[in-house]
Amino acid sequence: MEYDYICSSRAELTGRIGAVINNTVEQLSAISAGARKITPASCGPLPSVEAVREILDLVKTVIFPEFIDRYHGTRAMEDARLSVSTERLFRSLSKEIGHSLFQKNPDCGSSVAAEQGLELALKLVERLPEIKRLIYTDVQAIYDNDPATEDFGEIILSYPVVHAMIHYRFAHELLKIGVPVLPRIITELAHSDTGIDINPGATIGEYFAIDHGTGVVIGETCIIGDHVTLYQGVTLGARNFTLNGEGHPVNVPRHPILEDHVTVYANATILGRITVGHDTIVGGNVWLTESVPPKSRVVQKNAEFKVR
Amino acid sequence: MEYDYICSSRAELTGRIGAVINNTVEQLSAISAGARKITPASCGPLPSVEAVREILDLVKTVIFPEFIDRYHGTRAMEDARLSVSTERLFRSLSKEIGHSLFQKNPDCGSSVAAEQGLELALKLVERLPEIKRLIYTDVQAIYDNDPATEDFGEIILSYPVVHAMIHYRFAHELLKIGVPVLPRIITELAHSDTGIDINPGATIGEYFAIDHGTGVVIGETCIIGDHVTLYQGVTLGARNFTLNGEGHPVNVPRHPILEDHVTVYANATILGRITVGHDTIVGGNVWLTESVPPKSRVVQKNAEFKVR
Amino acid sequence: MEYDYICSSRAELTGRIGAVINNTVEQLSAISAGARKITPASCGPLPSVEAVREILDLVKTVIFPEFIDRYHGTRAMEDARLSVSTERLFRSLSKEIGHSLFQKNPDCGSSVAAEQGLELALKLVERLPEIKRLIYTDVQAIYDNDPATEDFGEIILSYPVVHAMIHYRFAHELLKIGVPVLPRIITELAHSDTGIDINPGATIGEYFAIDHGTGVVIGETCIIGDHVTLYQGVTLGARNFTLNGEGHPVNVPRHPILEDHVTVYANATILGRITVGHDTIVGGNVWLTESVPPKSRVVQKNAEFKVR
Amino acid sequence: MEYDYICSSRAELTGRIGAVINNTVEQLSAISAGARKITPASCGPLPSVEAVREILDLVKTVIFPEFIDRYHGTRAMEDARLSVSTERLFRSLSKEIGHSLFQKNPDCGSSVAAEQGLELALKLVERLPEIKRLIYTDVQAIYDNDPATEDFGEIILSYPVVHAMIHYRFAHELLKIGVPVLPRIITELAHSDTGIDINPGATIGEYFAIDHGTGVVIGETCIIGDHVTLYQGVTLGARNFTLNGEGHPVNVPRHPILEDHVTVYANATILGRITVGHDTIVGGNVWLTESVPPKSRVVQKNAEFKVR
Amino acid sequence: MEYDYICSSRAELTGRIGAVINNTVEQLSAISAGARKITPASCGPLPSVEAVREILDLVKTVIFPEFIDRYHGTRAMEDARLSVSTERLFRSLSKEIGHSLFQKNPDCGSSVAAEQGLELALKLVERLPEIKRLIYTDVQAIYDNDPATEDFGEIILSYPVVHAMIHYRFAHELLKIGVPVLPRIITELAHSDTGIDINPGATIGEYFAIDHGTGVVIGETCIIGDHVTLYQGVTLGARNFTLNGEGHPVNVPRHPILEDHVTVYANATILGRITVGHDTIVGGNVWLTESVPPKSRVVQKNAEFKVR
Amino acid sequence: MEYDYICSSRAELTGRIGAVINNTVEQLSAISAGARKITPASCGPLPSVEAVREILDLVKTVIFPEFIDRYHGTRAMEDARLSVSTERLFRSLSKEIGHSLFQKNPDCGSSVAAEQGLELALKLVERLPEIKRLIYTDVQAIYDNDPATEDFGEIILSYPVVHAMIHYRFAHELLKIGVPVLPRIITELAHSDTGIDINPGATIGEYFAIDHGTGVVIGETCIIGDHVTLYQGVTLGARNFTLNGEGHPVNVPRHPILEDHVTVYANATILGRITVGHDTIVGGNVWLTESVPPKSRVVQKNAEFKVR
Repeated sequence: MEYDYICSSRAELTGRIGAVINNTVEQLSAISAGARKITPASCGPLPSVEAVREILDLVKTVIFPEFIDRYHGTRAMEDARLSVSTERLFRSLSKEIGHSLFQKNPDCGSSVAAEQGLELALKLVERLPEIKRLIYTDVQAIYDNDPATEDFGEIILSYPVVHAMIHYRFAHELLKIGVPVLPRIITELAHSDTGIDINPGATIGEYFAIDHGTGVVIGETCIIGDHVTLYQGVTLGARNFTLNGEGHPVNVPRHPILEDHVTVYANATILGRITVGHDTIVGGNVWLTESVPPKSRVVQKNAEFKVR
Repeated sequence: MEYDYICSSRAELTGRIGAVINNTVEQLSAISAGARKITPASCGPLPSVEAVREILDLVKTVIFPEFIDRYHGTRAMEDARLSVSTERLFRSLSKEIGHSLFQKNPDCGSSVAAEQGLELALKLVERLPEIKRLIYTDVQAIYDNDPATEDFGEIILSYPVVHAMIHYRFAHELLKIGVPVLPRIITELAHSDTGIDINPGATIGEYFAIDHGTGVVIGETCIIGDHVTLYQGVTLGARNFTLNGEGHPVNVPRHPILEDHVTVYANATILGRITVGHDTIVGGNVWLTESVPPKSRVVQKNAEFKVR
Repeated sequence: MEYDYICSSRAELTGRIGAVINNTVEQLSAISAGARKITPASCGPLPSVEAVREILDLVKTVIFPEFIDRYHGTRAMEDARLSVSTERLFRSLSKEIGHSLFQKNPDCGSSVAAEQGLELALKLVERLPEIKRLIYTDVQAIYDNDPATEDFGEIILSYPVVHAMIHYRFAHELLKIGVPVLPRIITELAHSDTGIDINPGATIGEYFAIDHGTGVVIGETCIIGDHVTLYQGVTLGARNFTLNGEGHPVNVPRHPILEDHVTVYANATILGRITVGHDTIVGGNVWLTESVPPKSRVVQKNAEFKVR
Repeated sequence: MEYDYICSSRAELTGRIGAVINNTVEQLSAISAGARKITPASCGPLPSVEAVREILDLVKTVIFPEFIDRYHGTRAMEDARLSVSTERLFRSLSKEIGHSLFQKNPDCGSSVAAEQGLELALKLVERLPEIKRLIYTDVQAIYDNDPATEDFGEIILSYPVVHAMIHYRFAHELLKIGVPVLPRIITELAHSDTGIDINPGATIGEYFAIDHGTGVVIGETCIIGDHVTLYQGVTLGARNFTLNGEGHPVNVPRHPILEDHVTVYANATILGRITVGHDTIVGGNVWLTESVPPKSRVVQKNAEFKVR
Repeated sequence: MEYDYICSSRAELTGRIGAVINNTVEQLSAISAGARKITPASCGPLPSVEAVREILDLVKTVIFPEFIDRYHGTRAMEDARLSVSTERLFRSLSKEIGHSLFQKNPDCGSSVAAEQGLELALKLVERLPEIKRLIYTDVQAIYDNDPATEDFGEIILSYPVVHAMIHYRFAHELLKIGVPVLPRIITELAHSDTGIDINPGATIGEYFAIDHGTGVVIGETCIIGDHVTLYQGVTLGARNFTLNGEGHPVNVPRHPILEDHVTVYANATILGRITVGHDTIVGGNVWLTESVPPKSRVVQKNAEFKVR
Repeated sequence: MEYDYICSSRAELTGRIGAVINNTVEQLSAISAGARKITPASCGPLPSVEAVREILDLVKTVIFPEFIDRYHGTRAMEDARLSVSTERLFRSLSKEIGHSLFQKNPDCGSSVAAEQGLELALKLVERLPEIKRLIYTDVQAIYDNDPATEDFGEIILSYPVVHAMIHYRFAHELLKIGVPVLPRIITELAHSDTGIDINPGATIGEYFAIDHGTGVVIGETCIIGDHVTLYQGVTLGARNFTLNGEGHPVNVPRHPILEDHVTVYANATILGRITVGHDTIVGGNVWLTESVPPKSRVVQKNAEFKVR
């Protein structure tokens, strides 16, 4: 659909458009200059969200080759494919880590950042088997928890929590070896896809399961034991912030500790640096801000309703 | 950004990388062997998420040709396009059903699975007009429920619930004719896009509406009547599980029954095999675990707050 | 995977498939005819979701060129790139606005709709610097609120609220200059990506922050002041609807007013045309349906739990 | 591979690059202004080579559906696909014709050009069955001429002359109904792919074959009868030009006439407005500039060689 | 660019377009029915030109990994990549061979054709090292022949003859193991790209070079020894055809034999089943139709010119 | 199409395939090791043909923005687009030059090669206006030579010679500033598309025209004056080679010199370091190996034919 023109009518419009764009660009550019004062400017590239997405696809490929790569051949051929995927993962990851490092420390020179990127990516590759082992414990936990499935394949291919946990466990390892920026981009991608928001700084044990998942929030300093299960809408959050001298909130331990074998039902909210003892069940919609001993059952007190 | 090298410096690095990848692949591959013991291995391909996404796009195209295909021509030309889209849907669907069947029963031979895929896909195609009819009742219900719109087109193009319901209604029909794996993949795609998690096993009547939708969970054995409306964050879930001898939860009716003309407001949680009678209104944030008679108004009892 | 055939066996199947598709298309086409009675038919194209996605990518590019376009050059070169992106944004936007206008008023002629599309798109382009200014206040507010980050770049690249606010602020400007259909498509795209559902009709001041975000709902007639912060799962909704003579709900002010410096914690539900006074804090899970004076602290009354 | 930089070293380079580009653009832009004096400037779009390529793919699809579209179904389904392809061809073609017309006559207004484009494209669509009939005579002639094949499919899928003839026959029809620019673009695409250069203005009868084809040139005013066969490297060219008052060569009949059943062997050159009588054979490498009577055998006189 | 319409004007046009397309499709479809009588109809798919292009890219990748794949790693990693490329080549090739076989023999059943495709593709894979060895002799010959290059890489990356020879040598092996249709498609792709037309049936020895190449034609029954060099425009063709009872030319030996160490300069034409003895040089533009003994120098007799 | 299998039958085949691929890769890899002895191995990347194609597209865009980019706006907007295209050209070109340099001199270190790439690319950008000026003289010459066109646009969009000359003139400039490998890749791309083979080393004056073009060869040391016109199939080649001590041909002046205003008709062959004087016409099919004085008319002596 286009308006009817002969060249002279178009020329008039063209002139008007050109003037508006010119003027707009000048104003946009002026704001940009101001913003730079706040953000530490750097001349290097930022990590690419597209590349990160591809890296995580490769992580899934090397962790679940039977389900993602779908190739069935001799062991030698399968290992060849695994090698090629792993090498591609390594290459792409080292580049994005290099970009992240240069952002944080632009004075080191781009070659040095690139070299450190290679070294850190290599370290991460060495952690892949452990990540795979942990993810398989999660898949087992999800399976044990859900009467609606009889199949690991269905869980791996379609359950959002598996997606979220791969992103989290990979991002968490990156954070541990000192990679900036990238970890949060990785977990936010999963947050967008699944509605499950796990901060890469959180510590989560083996056999971890989340059912449905939408609305789950797990804060940066959470410590979660083994065999813990959460349902949709559960928040493990901070109660209040300590501000530093400049009024910016300080990054201190401020999120809950959940010991082994804890289950938290839908929409419960657990806030502050409290400890939920092992083998505890927290009921749905509970608002919990104090520590509870092991083997507790926490339920909402006045959760009755009235029928009119 | 790349580190500065001459070929000899690169060769050293190359050797190191090769060694790490080699070692990592060996370990990854070892875990893989273990995992196979759990998952019934099959040599056939799995359903493709990419293909499923395309199938659902075709479902939308044949259900809403005026809104998705955007072609306006003679009736003969419009039917020709509809035929081509339907045939493409059929072809792609039959392939994915074949893959699903072979996964579940790899001993039948790939040709037999492929042939059954064709037959089941053909059956599904025959259900498309009924799916279209039902979806149009949903669109009408959404329209009747929302003061913010004056337009079917806006609802169809942008309301997440329409997206979720097409995925659910299509997946539900697949499940009814015995297709494994695929239905859950289909509803989880919608879950990821909309935050609305409807199990394909649920039974949902005509004129069904969900507003906003994020966080809604509808369990596998739910039975929902006609003219039912839900708001964001509503859970229709299970209260607790029955385990079988091996400790795996058993798949029995365990989710609520909502009769006709029930409305459930935001963040209400309804759990267990209870019945909510027809023409009942369940208020926001209600936690409901017992059946209520028809024409009830259920509200949260102590939902007062205090202002300090 | 394909069933084993020789040409004659295929021919039989082909005939059967052809018959089913033929029959299905006839039925689908019949429903289509019925549906048209409801939807005001138009022969023009609808706005394209694909194009809208691309437009918003361009909006992000012109607002955050350092973070999205990642080009670093002389000011003249940076402005040249900004001009090219802005012009592309203008061109694509004018086309989609033209389609939206023609949908609403198909009697005006396609050229007239296209011409109005150009004029309105030009107006919107002039609003881009103000949108940029507002978004930077939001980024500042998010930064001031979150101990987990030290970096504007991380916020801009990965925080869902930034994504949601760009969509909302752009859609809101479109709505203000009278563009139909498009605004809602734009905010629903962000809703799908972030779980944050902001109606384009809502009015939101400067320095607005949402943390985590999943499940937040902000209704069409909300009025939100400056320096307001929301957490995940907060609903600012309508209490009940007024129906018009035909039983369709009427579009009147029905959502809350939040004055400056209000903070609302996770999962609180605020309903109806009430006013929350400035400098008020609303606690998590609160269900609020009455106005509160400035500087209040609203907390859930019986939010205790019991440990068994 | 990138040079090693810290931000300050990059800034210096950036400045230098910016200056060079700025200066270059100024110079390029100045030449551009000059060139416009020669070319009649127009504000409308030019025909798109990409679109033309796609149109020709559609022509092949509707002419050889069994070989290109590869769909086998019921007659009704095959016709539905044919309709959809034909409609797409029509739509794309009408757009490109509109662009061509507006180029030639920018004063008519863009809507009028677009409307004429629709009418002319419709005319062309009506010629498609005749084009198909002619092409099938060519395929038959190629088959009758080549001992190396036993298969129509092989000819259609892989022989360059089929490709060249479809482009030529389609372009020739466009030229006959008065479409400018487009015809030459179409035949040059085939020229690039096959080394066969047929001017769209040439007139070519039924059952036309070219073997190998590379280097064949057929001039604008050639008239070629039925059952004519050419080999690689044959030129049917002009001898010399008549110039008009401004020194530009005049477009008059200046290429050969080949009557029915003429065969011309490899690398023969036939120049000027001469007539080669029916049932004549012209030998390889012949240089022919005079008319020959029917049933002649023209061979190179001193075509002997010596062996030393 | 689009014509100006309101919906009613569009409806009229739509009707007219629909009628023309309907009518055209009917006519096209009628011709199609006729054509089928000539071509042995088959319900299976034809080989895909797209797939063939990809297969040849893979052939180049496995033959020249350093130049095409550009990966440098440990020997184990390089072999892993080679394995993955080879396996992909095998898989795609087996599919296209299966299609070719089913075309020729549609009564065997699609599974049988697919199985034979696998077996033949496996045989071809085993021939790859020999193809690689031969191609490297060609590269050496080209290098020895050309003063304009000092580099194997430049030859492999940019000389058309390398491209043509890979296609020919691969197609020739396919032909030898009995694959129909595919070989000619493969050599015609190279013909289109390079202007070098080598029939896959020709027999060509080691160390074969063509300079420039455009216009070279090498017929189906040619036999060419080792260390032979051709220049642009050389034809090794048939003199005349023997027709069978039905008037179709018979496929008998009809092209030249060139013994070892023969060089043929630009635009020479050598026709018929003659033998050019070893160590012979054929001059440019020579027209040769009789055998010559070894160590001859054949030059055009009256190749003088006159200057006026 | 796939063969019918159950998992055990597939496993047997899988084993066989794996063994063959393994064996083949070993053999391929062994040859590869041998080949490396010949080619000077380098660990850096080679220039990318894909990238080169894109670079040339950008060259066309900045030379003919009205015809390729098709954007019509204010002068400021047009220059902004030109700047963006030029900068992209520069960036991509500098990368490919860097790769070329590192290939030739891998001991310099990758950063140094990259830096030199930037400097040389910058030099080339400065030559773009001169390239544009020359190309416009060529377009003028083509126009003056062809009665079949009335339009610069048609020539620029569809005449192969324009394509060939842009590639040649750009490659020639690269060669002059010392870039290896890249120039030949660039002219071979045009050779493949047009059948016109111009060595980047040739020197060609202003107002150069080639008609039809297929089969034209212009050797490395040719020197061509202004206002020269060639027709299809013309060879400007070497007569014979001087070999160096190792038997490799030496790169000395060995191709013809054509002075100003020379015209060479179809399929003429001019060989050796001879001079064709200004204002000379060389007739079709002439075989010329001696110098001719200015203003000559060279025609084939015994070019008569006989009619039998």
